[in-house]
Amino acid sequence: MHSSQSHPQSTTTTTTTNNHHHPTFPPPESESETTWVWTQIKAEARRDAECEPALATHLYSTILSHPSLDRSLSFHLANKLSSSTLLSTLLYDLFLLSFSSDPSLVSSAVADLLAVRQRDPACVSFSHCLLNYKGFLACQAQRVAHRLWLQSRRPMALALHSRVAEVFAVDIHPAARIGKSVLFDHATGLVVGETAVIGNNVSILHHVTLGGTGKVGGDRHPKIGDGVLIGAGATVLGNVKIGEGAKIGAGSLVLIDVPPRTTAVGNPARLIGGRERPVRHEDVPGYPK
Amino acid sequence: MHSSQSHPQSTTTTTTTNNHHHPTFPPPESESETTWVWTQIKAEARRDAECEPALATHLYSTILSHPSLDRSLSFHLANKLSSSTLLSTLLYDLFLLSFSSDPSLVSSAVADLLAVRQRDPACVSFSHCLLNYKGFLACQAQRVAHRLWLQSRRPMALALHSRVAEVFAVDIHPAARIGKSVLFDHATGLVVGETAVIGNNVSILHHVTLGGTGKVGGDRHPKIGDGVLIGAGATVLGNVKIGEGAKIGAGSLVLIDVPPRTTAVGNPARLIGGRERPVRHEDVPGYPK
Amino acid sequence: MHSSQSHPQSTTTTTTTNNHHHPTFPPPESESETTWVWTQIKAEARRDAECEPALATHLYSTILSHPSLDRSLSFHLANKLSSSTLLSTLLYDLFLLSFSSDPSLVSSAVADLLAVRQRDPACVSFSHCLLNYKGFLACQAQRVAHRLWLQSRRPMALALHSRVAEVFAVDIHPAARIGKSVLFDHATGLVVGETAVIGNNVSILHHVTLGGTGKVGGDRHPKIGDGVLIGAGATVLGNVKIGEGAKIGAGSLVLIDVPPRTTAVGNPARLIGGRERPVRHEDVPGYPK
Amino acid sequence: MHSSQSHPQSTTTTTTTNNHHHPTFPPPESESETTWVWTQIKAEARRDAECEPALATHLYSTILSHPSLDRSLSFHLANKLSSSTLLSTLLYDLFLLSFSSDPSLVSSAVADLLAVRQRDPACVSFSHCLLNYKGFLACQAQRVAHRLWLQSRRPMALALHSRVAEVFAVDIHPAARIGKSVLFDHATGLVVGETAVIGNNVSILHHVTLGGTGKVGGDRHPKIGDGVLIGAGATVLGNVKIGEGAKIGAGSLVLIDVPPRTTAVGNPARLIGGRERPVRHEDVPGYPK
Amino acid sequence: MHSSQSHPQSTTTTTTTNNHHHPTFPPPESESETTWVWTQIKAEARRDAECEPALATHLYSTILSHPSLDRSLSFHLANKLSSSTLLSTLLYDLFLLSFSSDPSLVSSAVADLLAVRQRDPACVSFSHCLLNYKGFLACQAQRVAHRLWLQSRRPMALALHSRVAEVFAVDIHPAARIGKSVLFDHATGLVVGETAVIGNNVSILHHVTLGGTGKVGGDRHPKIGDGVLIGAGATVLGNVKIGEGAKIGAGSLVLIDVPPRTTAVGNPARLIGGRERPVRHEDVPGYPK
Amino acid sequence: MHSSQSHPQSTTTTTTTNNHHHPTFPPPESESETTWVWTQIKAEARRDAECEPALATHLYSTILSHPSLDRSLSFHLANKLSSSTLLSTLLYDLFLLSFSSDPSLVSSAVADLLAVRQRDPACVSFSHCLLNYKGFLACQAQRVAHRLWLQSRRPMALALHSRVAEVFAVDIHPAARIGKSVLFDHATGLVVGETAVIGNNVSILHHVTLGGTGKVGGDRHPKIGDGVLIGAGATVLGNVKIGEGAKIGAGSLVLIDVPPRTTAVGNPARLIGGRERPVRHEDVPGYPK
Repeated sequence: MHSSQSHPQSTTTTTTTNNHHHPTFPPPESESETTWVWTQIKAEARRDAECEPALATHLYSTILSHPSLDRSLSFHLANKLSSSTLLSTLLYDLFLLSFSSDPSLVSSAVADLLAVRQRDPACVSFSHCLLNYKGFLACQAQRVAHRLWLQSRRPMALALHSRVAEVFAVDIHPAARIGKSVLFDHATGLVVGETAVIGNNVSILHHVTLGGTGKVGGDRHPKIGDGVLIGAGATVLGNVKIGEGAKIGAGSLVLIDVPPRTTAVGNPARLIGGRERPVRHEDVPGYPK
Repeated sequence: MHSSQSHPQSTTTTTTTNNHHHPTFPPPESESETTWVWTQIKAEARRDAECEPALATHLYSTILSHPSLDRSLSFHLANKLSSSTLLSTLLYDLFLLSFSSDPSLVSSAVADLLAVRQRDPACVSFSHCLLNYKGFLACQAQRVAHRLWLQSRRPMALALHSRVAEVFAVDIHPAARIGKSVLFDHATGLVVGETAVIGNNVSILHHVTLGGTGKVGGDRHPKIGDGVLIGAGATVLGNVKIGEGAKIGAGSLVLIDVPPRTTAVGNPARLIGGRERPVRHEDVPGYPK
Repeated sequence: MHSSQSHPQSTTTTTTTNNHHHPTFPPPESESETTWVWTQIKAEARRDAECEPALATHLYSTILSHPSLDRSLSFHLANKLSSSTLLSTLLYDLFLLSFSSDPSLVSSAVADLLAVRQRDPACVSFSHCLLNYKGFLACQAQRVAHRLWLQSRRPMALALHSRVAEVFAVDIHPAARIGKSVLFDHATGLVVGETAVIGNNVSILHHVTLGGTGKVGGDRHPKIGDGVLIGAGATVLGNVKIGEGAKIGAGSLVLIDVPPRTTAVGNPARLIGGRERPVRHEDVPGYPK
Repeated sequence: MHSSQSHPQSTTTTTTTNNHHHPTFPPPESESETTWVWTQIKAEARRDAECEPALATHLYSTILSHPSLDRSLSFHLANKLSSSTLLSTLLYDLFLLSFSSDPSLVSSAVADLLAVRQRDPACVSFSHCLLNYKGFLACQAQRVAHRLWLQSRRPMALALHSRVAEVFAVDIHPAARIGKSVLFDHATGLVVGETAVIGNNVSILHHVTLGGTGKVGGDRHPKIGDGVLIGAGATVLGNVKIGEGAKIGAGSLVLIDVPPRTTAVGNPARLIGGRERPVRHEDVPGYPK
Repeated sequence: MHSSQSHPQSTTTTTTTNNHHHPTFPPPESESETTWVWTQIKAEARRDAECEPALATHLYSTILSHPSLDRSLSFHLANKLSSSTLLSTLLYDLFLLSFSSDPSLVSSAVADLLAVRQRDPACVSFSHCLLNYKGFLACQAQRVAHRLWLQSRRPMALALHSRVAEVFAVDIHPAARIGKSVLFDHATGLVVGETAVIGNNVSILHHVTLGGTGKVGGDRHPKIGDGVLIGAGATVLGNVKIGEGAKIGAGSLVLIDVPPRTTAVGNPARLIGGRERPVRHEDVPGYPK
Repeated sequence: MHSSQSHPQSTTTTTTTNNHHHPTFPPPESESETTWVWTQIKAEARRDAECEPALATHLYSTILSHPSLDRSLSFHLANKLSSSTLLSTLLYDLFLLSFSSDPSLVSSAVADLLAVRQRDPACVSFSHCLLNYKGFLACQAQRVAHRLWLQSRRPMALALHSRVAEVFAVDIHPAARIGKSVLFDHATGLVVGETAVIGNNVSILHHVTLGGTGKVGGDRHPKIGDGVLIGAGATVLGNVKIGEGAKIGAGSLVLIDVPPRTTAVGNPARLIGGRERPVRHEDVPGYPK
């Protein structure tokens, strides 16, 4: 959380960041990504608990007392999203069962953790993201709600959606499809409509709307390609296609398709040049910091 | 929640929506609107509780254990807005007494429920709106706060206002006047100032501000006419008049009067043509989806 | 809360407000500012408790049962920011200790209270601000988090930051530096990055972002000079300097330096004239209402 | 609470207590008993709130913010007896409705308050009893449960009974009949069976059991006459009759009828002489302190 | 709960109870006992929820939303025993894991439910016992604590024990061994020491102590044989043996062995005759009502 | 908790217990008793947290995150005794201030911890007692309430008393005077009247009543000398004097003075022989296990 915004006028500049404080990635082949990340999280939490005894309770409760990432995440989400009429034990059951039935939910969470760590210079550790990032937590809850939606458990999906919208001020319809390695930075005020699709490696800042135009029913929300970066306060409306690696400037209003590797800025947005450079990992706009 | 946005460039197109999944409306003349809607809500909740036992507790607690809409709504709001120093029983008392003393509060809630159902394609049922729509709940709480304000119970009105702003991230001053059949869609970040007035059949999306200009005291906020539609992220400042049936494009900054049936878009906003067509029910811009 | 917005086109007009309902300020020399404000707050709360018995519990709990402002504020923040894994007693300890160790935290809170009272016509009393203003409460909690950050207690600083972001939808990085007499009006959706600096007498409305551009690491966020006013929904990105007494129009996107006493409006923002008048207290744009 | 026990060997001594600190009773004829007691309670609470600001919150919440005794009592019982699956608002409704439907529940509560005040030297005020006496609160909740039982709402009666048994460690079956002006002193561990009957002006200390013998079904529990006093730890088993004005010594095991104005002591209990004196108000053993 | 006590003087009388309102038992052979009882519980809860909508929330939350008895019981115990530092989700995990690892815990719970139903005329249904009987719930929690104790997880066993002692006022050391088909009636104040053993088919009333004599360490608490009945308030001290089918009168103090099928009454207790009758099912003193 | 009872018939036997698992006591002279005990508690909690990760949260919250015994105890009591109208932060303040104003409260708590550890073979560690012993916690809260009582803060003293009686089922009047090195074992149902006095080194089991006889006002409750042991379920009534080192048998009813080093048993109690042996530390009946 807390740091960067796309500068629309200058996307042709290569963004190079020396993330020398980041862990070596990818992890050694001899262990799975999930195991490796979970081991990191435990070590970070243990270190923090030692430095800051006043926080130890919180860290043991949310991380250190759990045997695995999915249980930690289930516990944390259940406590955050519970209300006087939706008890934490009920939500805990729901999350645990979802994570154990669909391992892709856990691997997506791990991919998101790695994405946040790599793209957000203000993120100091995996545990920091796991515990504190509203966007990360909202995204994991939405993936569970999406799974419920696909299983035709719509009332439960919408109840979960409602709690996420209330607690995190992040409002993603459970029917929306979200890829992997996604970063919802700061996240307050994010609104994503029912038929929206968000690809892999996408970074979206706060106050962003992926909405409808109000003119048509059915498939009426934006389709966001892989590696897209959308700046703070941008509004994208209608069943438009934002191409792979495109950038949407902060505060823009986008009502048209944006071709791949192109930047759109302004209200209403205009396109300001594609990028012809071959795409290397560090060039994908979703990794700008 | 979660779906539609005004497309400012295309408001001349008639918006036709086949709401074939919506209930026949108006209800049969032989029963009151409130009774009819409450019956629908109970039936929906009963059906959902049967399909989804894990949600039954929530549905019984909020809807099925109550004999009437005003008690259900009082209970739901009291639990959502309570805090460690504002107990739910106290708020419950306050809401119950308000609803029973002023039946127009209940009929306005019913009108809002019908409006949401008709205008928001993502709204799957009345109970969905009653339980989950932050904008709907914030609006009902504001109407009660407004009543307290008029009774010179300002500290209580402001305490209620504060809880709504915190819990729902919807910040409507208790002195603001709000009409009937209002839809606050998504609602996160909505800010409405002290001397603002919102007419009937108005639809307002999230991140909208109806604010002052900071230059004058007294009557300093916008007056929104009947049937107006205001898109996401729009900012309307000053004691300006937005005429009946006008549309404000998403992301617009409006500092001037907007005539009836006219659309304003851009930052700063410019007007893009009035509409001469006779106003039919389905043409009022408040019903665009 | 709830009232005014900067009107970018008209900042040359002198803003004169007859705050005749405001207390005479500064307070008599014979007593300290903190004591005077606390006495006012107690008197207001006592009056409100008498008029509105239903609110007396809330007022006694938060104000009237406490011997001093710092204890009242610690109590109020601890209860609001507690969660099932961060108990209110722990947070209460943390706030109490911070306020007693660093008296400037209390004097800054008092300065903010006076600023809100003077600049926001919708603020009816000091106690109203102390109890209900999300921006005020978030700011005080951030100052404590900032102190923890400087003491290298980063995990605790970030935990506090996370709770503020979740409860108030106000997201100010604990490393950001904030001056005195600051008004965060409405405050929902405010985002302030890690290396941002906010001067004295600054007024910032809701949905404002002081973010990075994503191109560079290190010192990458805006520096806001004394007396600046930033309108609702404005986005200021990059390590730019907003000069003393400048105004940023609502909904503007600012990517460049803004000279002192100059107004910037639009997306992207353009400058519309400096002010040559000698700066008097009542002319500083942070006091526009 | 906390004071006196029957001394079985010495009941023939006239018990004279100088309750000079007690209010003059009965209250002036010009007002009802309920109104008079409620006025006293409010005055006491107001005085305590002034002396002890730290307690003001508690006193406003439970007493001073309520317009009448039945609302105060409903609020207090609802908060004490609520659980994560029996919400306080639901119980509040239940108590409010019961008290308003059956005014005898309120007048019985008032009679109990007067009884406690007159018989227990450790009771310093009506508000002290209303807020703090487990026996008083358990008794009022039982009367409501009894009413539900008679209305064939047995599951609700038993749920209420269960909460009382858990919260107060007082276990009175909802079918048991209890008179007026009853004092359950200390009350911890009191057990009263399904077919037991307790008359008017009865005083029962803690750890007392009015149970069955296990040999027969049907009407199998003791019948306690008016004005009886039962000492701490006494066990009365079977469908026996304890006559008017009788005394049961502390720690006694009673398996036989006890004639009026007679004392029973020991394990098993033996009778130690009736009392021939004409019964005056101050002689009834239920008023011994 | 709520009914019967042993009558020490009359144990030679055959106790015949016409439990005509009880379900036919044993259940049909074609299904397991656990399944059959769970089916009954669901049916009872469904019927109660229909009759009493105000209780439906409670019944769905605790019973109807769960797929099996062990999940329902885990949920109910976790919510009842949770505290601000022992979260319900943690306890839920602990109970779920215990029940699934050791099916005898579930079958013991079922045996207890059947025992309560058969012996306590005041028990109106299985669900009534499952939800409301402190003795039943304390016993199930103790069995889980006992399992933790045997696994050398003593701190957790003692933490659980402590919560049970606090919430239910039932204090059974986790090292004590408890058989099947046990009835702890009313249960308030029951204290069972570390080296005590309780056999099968035992019925123990409230305020009973199975304690040590304070003279020796090691194995120092009573051993209670199968089918024993211990009346309310009885105190059994030291490593004494209460033989199969014996009865201990209410209020007795037992410091010596009691032979099988013998009754002990008084303080100190004396034996009042063995029973020579052949033991039939309905004659075992554990089934007296 | 959970173990031993006085055996009335055999108090002449020297009670020797090999508490070889207990810490060497007294602690080394070079440190204070309080420091030494607190160091032990921290070490125990740390060891338990390592063995039982599921309990680490609880242990950090209650012990390991605190710098001193008085803060740990204040936190623990505040959380246990809080209610919806008596917030934990308020109680935390009250306890913290009491402990810091009156260091004898802390040294008494330490003396009690040492007493429990030495006399109760079921007590496995200091932390076990600190966290889990109802009698220990009730006693510490009573000492604070007693201090408030002496300061004429009676409403607060009674409010605290009421919470202790409700939460722990231990009912000690705040005016009662209690010595040091006191053990209230199991503690459920303990009732101590207003004018009772309890000396040093006293051990009292559960269900004990130190009550009045109901015949006189004023000084009407028992005076318990140093080193007295009172067995479970004993009832001592009236202003009688129980001499130093006396023993009261379980289940006894005592209405007369008991000379020093004498044992009283039965209902009513008779004396069974004084002890002429010179009193050595290990002979004082308060240390029987």
